[in-house]
Amino acid sequence: VTSKYIRKLEASADLPLDDEHVLSQGGYNTPEQVHLTQGDHDGRAVIVSWVTPSEPGSSVVNYGTSKGQYEHSANGSITSYKFYDYTSGFIHHCVLSDLEYGTTYFYKLGTGNSTREFSFTTPPRVNQDSSYIFGIIGDLGQTYDSLKTLEHYLGSKGQTVLYVGDLSYADHYPYDSNVRWDTWGRLVEPSTAYQPWIWTAGNHEIEYLPQIGEVELFKPYRQRYHVPHTSSGSLSPLWYSIKRASAYIIVLSSYSSYAKYTPQWNWLQKELPKVKRHETPWLIVLMHTPLYNSNSYHYMEGESMRVQFEPWFVKFKVDIVFAGHVHAYERTHRVSNVLYDIENNNCVPVYDKSAPMYVTIGDGGNIEGIAGNFRDPQPAYSAYREASFGHALLDIKNRTHAYYSWHRNQDGKAVVADSFWLSNRHHGKWEEHT
Amino acid sequence: VTSKYIRKLEASADLPLDDEHVLSQGGYNTPEQVHLTQGDHDGRAVIVSWVTPSEPGSSVVNYGTSKGQYEHSANGSITSYKFYDYTSGFIHHCVLSDLEYGTTYFYKLGTGNSTREFSFTTPPRVNQDSSYIFGIIGDLGQTYDSLKTLEHYLGSKGQTVLYVGDLSYADHYPYDSNVRWDTWGRLVEPSTAYQPWIWTAGNHEIEYLPQIGEVELFKPYRQRYHVPHTSSGSLSPLWYSIKRASAYIIVLSSYSSYAKYTPQWNWLQKELPKVKRHETPWLIVLMHTPLYNSNSYHYMEGESMRVQFEPWFVKFKVDIVFAGHVHAYERTHRVSNVLYDIENNNCVPVYDKSAPMYVTIGDGGNIEGIAGNFRDPQPAYSAYREASFGHALLDIKNRTHAYYSWHRNQDGKAVVADSFWLSNRHHGKWEEHT
Ligand SMILES: [Fe+3]
Ligand SMILES: [Fe+3]
Ligand SMILES: [Zn+2]
Ligand SMILES: [Zn+2]
Repeated sequence: VTSKYIRKLEASADLPLDDEHVLSQGGYNTPEQVHLTQGDHDGRAVIVSWVTPSEPGSSVVNYGTSKGQYEHSANGSITSYKFYDYTSGFIHHCVLSDLEYGTTYFYKLGTGNSTREFSFTTPPRVNQDSSYIFGIIGDLGQTYDSLKTLEHYLGSKGQTVLYVGDLSYADHYPYDSNVRWDTWGRLVEPSTAYQPWIWTAGNHEIEYLPQIGEVELFKPYRQRYHVPHTSSGSLSPLWYSIKRASAYIIVLSSYSSYAKYTPQWNWLQKELPKVKRHETPWLIVLMHTPLYNSNSYHYMEGESMRVQFEPWFVKFKVDIVFAGHVHAYERTHRVSNVLYDIENNNCVPVYDKSAPMYVTIGDGGNIEGIAGNFRDPQPAYSAYREASFGHALLDIKNRTHAYYSWHRNQDGKAVVADSFWLSNRHHGKWEEHT
Repeated sequence: VTSKYIRKLEASADLPLDDEHVLSQGGYNTPEQVHLTQGDHDGRAVIVSWVTPSEPGSSVVNYGTSKGQYEHSANGSITSYKFYDYTSGFIHHCVLSDLEYGTTYFYKLGTGNSTREFSFTTPPRVNQDSSYIFGIIGDLGQTYDSLKTLEHYLGSKGQTVLYVGDLSYADHYPYDSNVRWDTWGRLVEPSTAYQPWIWTAGNHEIEYLPQIGEVELFKPYRQRYHVPHTSSGSLSPLWYSIKRASAYIIVLSSYSSYAKYTPQWNWLQKELPKVKRHETPWLIVLMHTPLYNSNSYHYMEGESMRVQFEPWFVKFKVDIVFAGHVHAYERTHRVSNVLYDIENNNCVPVYDKSAPMYVTIGDGGNIEGIAGNFRDPQPAYSAYREASFGHALLDIKNRTHAYYSWHRNQDGKAVVADSFWLSNRHHGKWEEHT
């Protein structure tokens, strides 16, 4: 079905630099842009990151299980970077490890009278029946629509965000004004300081601008957003995996080589057989460029990775694949197109109950505006599509059931516009309504 | 046609370390592994490279247009590297530029009583009617069969080698014994010291071995084999282009990202429109992994790059694409498979006179042996295929005609086993016999 929901099409502007949602904290050298992500493979560690604008200050995080009492502390590291004529603040990354499952921790950072306190809750123990609610957001950017998407997500029950790439759109500005990385960090803090966002790199994170001497791919992104890639045996932060509650999440890089014999290919080949579905039944893959997409925007850009990895996704019964990049929303049926052998002219996506469902969720609301031009008629593989901004939720109930929903930013309210009960591909106990 | 030529199938062994073809030169610190490649975009420069085993010595190359008189000199640079428990000799790279077209230069390197002298001939001026003979060799390695292939090529009229990747197979040895890079350098010197080899990286050049702490991709290859990539605006030596006589040669990397927005994709998108076919009518592309291959070995490994770049090859009327990787020989008809749009189930290679001819020439004779298992029946896109070691020649006569031939290492003699008169795709004056 292609929803006929009407919404204004023209892209909204970025929040101005003096907008309250992107302004620096008050006080001297106050920690800002505070964000969390999972710090290990099993969910018992967190990476706390933040920026201090004026001087290094302390990289210590004090934390504990009751507010105001911090019986633990950990020391982080500091980095900073230059990008063309921009110099970053002091970027702190601090890993809190050996945390208890299912526990709320309060943490404090900063020194003197510019300290700030936040909290986060660790996931339940990795277990096939652990329930957990993931938010899924992509291509957010920092416009008025982005703010609406974020506010709607903040109002949801989401416990961790699966972020499918294209973060700040700083590269939208002449010479890629990295100030817009700082504003983005501040915009998303109300969520990122309290729950981990699981990062995927998008094309807007490449920031390869030889004409201004910037040739280190993904530099700002890698400096600002650390991920626990070494815990899954990856030597690159652009592809890695984590376990969280009953989910096994594999993050891939659309913009690193995935040809046979290359590091990402080698890593994924070894990674998929490691997934123990009796421990983590929900196998989720994140990437930026969608493998199935019926929007004319970026049409077929995912083919190069699809021909390489789709057979593995079907073989290992991935439950769901989330991607961004196309600034609209789409959910496919469970389809596969893996029988082609050059000579058999067999290249039509067909319903396949071992195949994942592919969701494109690049509709966070960024400055490039909505991709309003789907190819008509809607192809058979496409179950639901709509050119609207919004976010999704994956509410994993137990080993067999998960309730997936997509929430459109309609008239300021987060409206469930598409939803689906997933039956776990490994357990496959019951037939999904297709 | 699938030739029924019978040849022994089992792989022959590498030449032993004390074989005369791979032994070090006599004398103290004598320059060895001397090899040339084009040093600029237009063919008026040469990179002279060599290794001195014991100490740096001099990086100067003295050169001139008459033997024994060296009125010019250039100074090179020295590098060396470690790989696991191996330490390289001193690797020299020296660029000779502003050379005259169509001129034989004599050059001398080394010092004291361990100097050595060689010569090379620069190509004719870049011009649409310049005739030139390229040798094409792939996956050579250093076995007795490799030696035969090399000796047959040395006996040919080839003036420059287009090398399609997989050089030494040093990584065939436990912990990737880089000594076998040195032996390979010595093996090929009888050709490489006298004419440029245009280098393409293969999977055996990746040498990514995290288990022994070697994680810098292509390290030995990049240290030993320099290419003129900056002359074509590429920031990576793994993809670049050169002009030579009436040919425009584009070298691609099968093992670097080629997704949209990545450096290699950006570079090729800008590069193809730069080709002036009235100046260089013969547009040749080199890569390691073949886009068309009917051998079961590495079957369909080129699909990921094919879906990305094949449309451009057809649009820009590439004349011929050379690849290696499959250790056999195959030549296709001019075919294309670029009409697929996910919904039209149109994915059959069809005859297309704007399409390139695809040649797989990974049959240099390396230690992995011949890939003797073609898929049967021979598909329509495949014109000639044979599981035999050998090399090819592209004898460009003028802007409209080039005589292509493949020479099988049969019974010690180089036997023309496949040949084809190419009609230039740009001029397309006459119909090729298909
Ligand atoms: Fe985007
Ligand atoms: Fe090979
Ligand atoms: Zn994108
Ligand atoms: Zn190969």
